Amino acid sequence: MKIDILTLFPEMFSGVTGSSIIKNAIEKGLVNVDATDFRPFSTHRQGHVDDYPYGGGAGMLLMAQPLFDAVAHLKAEGVKPRVILLDPAGVPYTQKLAEELAQEEQLIMICGHYEGYDERIREHLVTDEISIGDYILTGGEVGAMAIMDSVVRLLPGALGNDQSAVTDSFSTGLLEHPHYTRPADFRGLTVPDVLMSGHHANIERWRHEESLRRTASRRPDMLDVYPLSDADLTFLKAEVLYDPNKKEQ
Amino acid sequence: MKIDILTLFPEMFSGVTGSSIIKNAIEKGLVNVDATDFRPFSTHRQGHVDDYPYGGGAGMLLMAQPLFDAVAHLKAEGVKPRVILLDPAGVPYTQKLAEELAQEEQLIMICGHYEGYDERIREHLVTDEISIGDYILTGGEVGAMAIMDSVVRLLPGALGNDQSAVTDSFSTGLLEHPHYTRPADFRGLTVPDVLMSGHHANIERWRHEESLRRTASRRPDMLDVYPLSDADLTFLKAEVLYDPNKKEQ
Repeated sequence: MKIDILTLFPEMFSGVTGSSIIKNAIEKGLVNVDATDFRPFSTHRQGHVDDYPYGGGAGMLLMAQPLFDAVAHLKAEGVKPRVILLDPAGVPYTQKLAEELAQEEQLIMICGHYEGYDERIREHLVTDEISIGDYILTGGEVGAMAIMDSVVRLLPGALGNDQSAVTDSFSTGLLEHPHYTRPADFRGLTVPDVLMSGHHANIERWRHEESLRRTASRRPDMLDVYPLSDADLTFLKAEVLYDPNKKEQ
Repeated sequence: MKIDILTLFPEMFSGVTGSSIIKNAIEKGLVNVDATDFRPFSTHRQGHVDDYPYGGGAGMLLMAQPLFDAVAHLKAEGVKPRVILLDPAGVPYTQKLAEELAQEEQLIMICGHYEGYDERIREHLVTDEISIGDYILTGGEVGAMAIMDSVVRLLPGALGNDQSAVTDSFSTGLLEHPHYTRPADFRGLTVPDVLMSGHHANIERWRHEESLRRTASRRPDMLDVYPLSDADLTFLKAEVLYDPNKKEQ
């Protein structure tokens, strides 16, 4: 896979591409990552990449020309890349979308900074507008890092087996149950007896119920789509944690 | 404000703290950011920070001791810091939470990597468990960057006035309307006539309706809580974009 990032701040990516999973994936040849400054693509004599909005209003907008030309330059031969605009008005990013992007040959991610975008970039240049969450960032860079991180770890060979086992459990549709490791008594805080019992069926049931409990209290929206068994419903009703007839609004 | 990040990969943060808004905020003395490796806080003779889960299962867990001691070490004198665990099982991060965190004197963010956490960290060390979105990342580092970026830009003096004006418009509760800048004709793609008309009332109405249209098509959940006027409802019904009697599930 090839990942290209178009940004005015390519140096922001050095920490993330130089560490951990992404560094390993680059070294193994699983992915090629480049952060490219799009300012040099401007045909404006002073290298401007932004201008005032038509119709008035505060703030500057990124112009179409530098980004159209930078994307054309980066497109790999014979490949139809996904061209992603990081933007709060985009569709919410999800694990399902990460899995879809992990199948692509090339991702080109466009990071704005401070400003908005000329609408022709959205309509005629990009294939996806993505938001990583309902909070305001100073630019698209941290969002591009989140997408890169979540996609690269899905590439075959990027993770060791021991790593994938833990993190993928989030994809079960429930939040993780509590985990404990040594010592059994840490400054007076102890581990639940069931985990020390060696009784595997009881441990499994405790873990599943704790997952249900945590999901019900923090993310009831996830239970609305989780295939709850009769036993799950009995547990949740007995604990007054969740009413399946009253879905989240 | 003081922001401390506890991570096994402190070098991941150099790009973000060395660029743009965060760099400026640090130089202006508005915020002090440190990324600290918590491995040296381990009392284990080989510096281990993780161990196997009680009750069995794949993967390693971060132990309580190194993180309890690292947080105790970083706590500023006389301050009650927010101690934040970045975790997919946390509460979803929102702009409202960013605004709340921006009022604090000290944030300590704990980034796990690959593994889960010993539950005693959640129960007795942290004040907040936060998830930046429903996707799996290899560690908490990118989430800590997102929180840092969204919080620092809210500190008084961090943004110029022209910058805040644009980005804050997301807080209106609707997605942004389209924007256009020069040229009026870019490779045959033109700007809507209304924006060139100079008729301010028509421009305002067009922008508001386009915000409604985009929000209805991409994020109908936002309209469920937006205070729609009678004119808004008439517009949305005429365009068959949104039915207020059929809220999002």
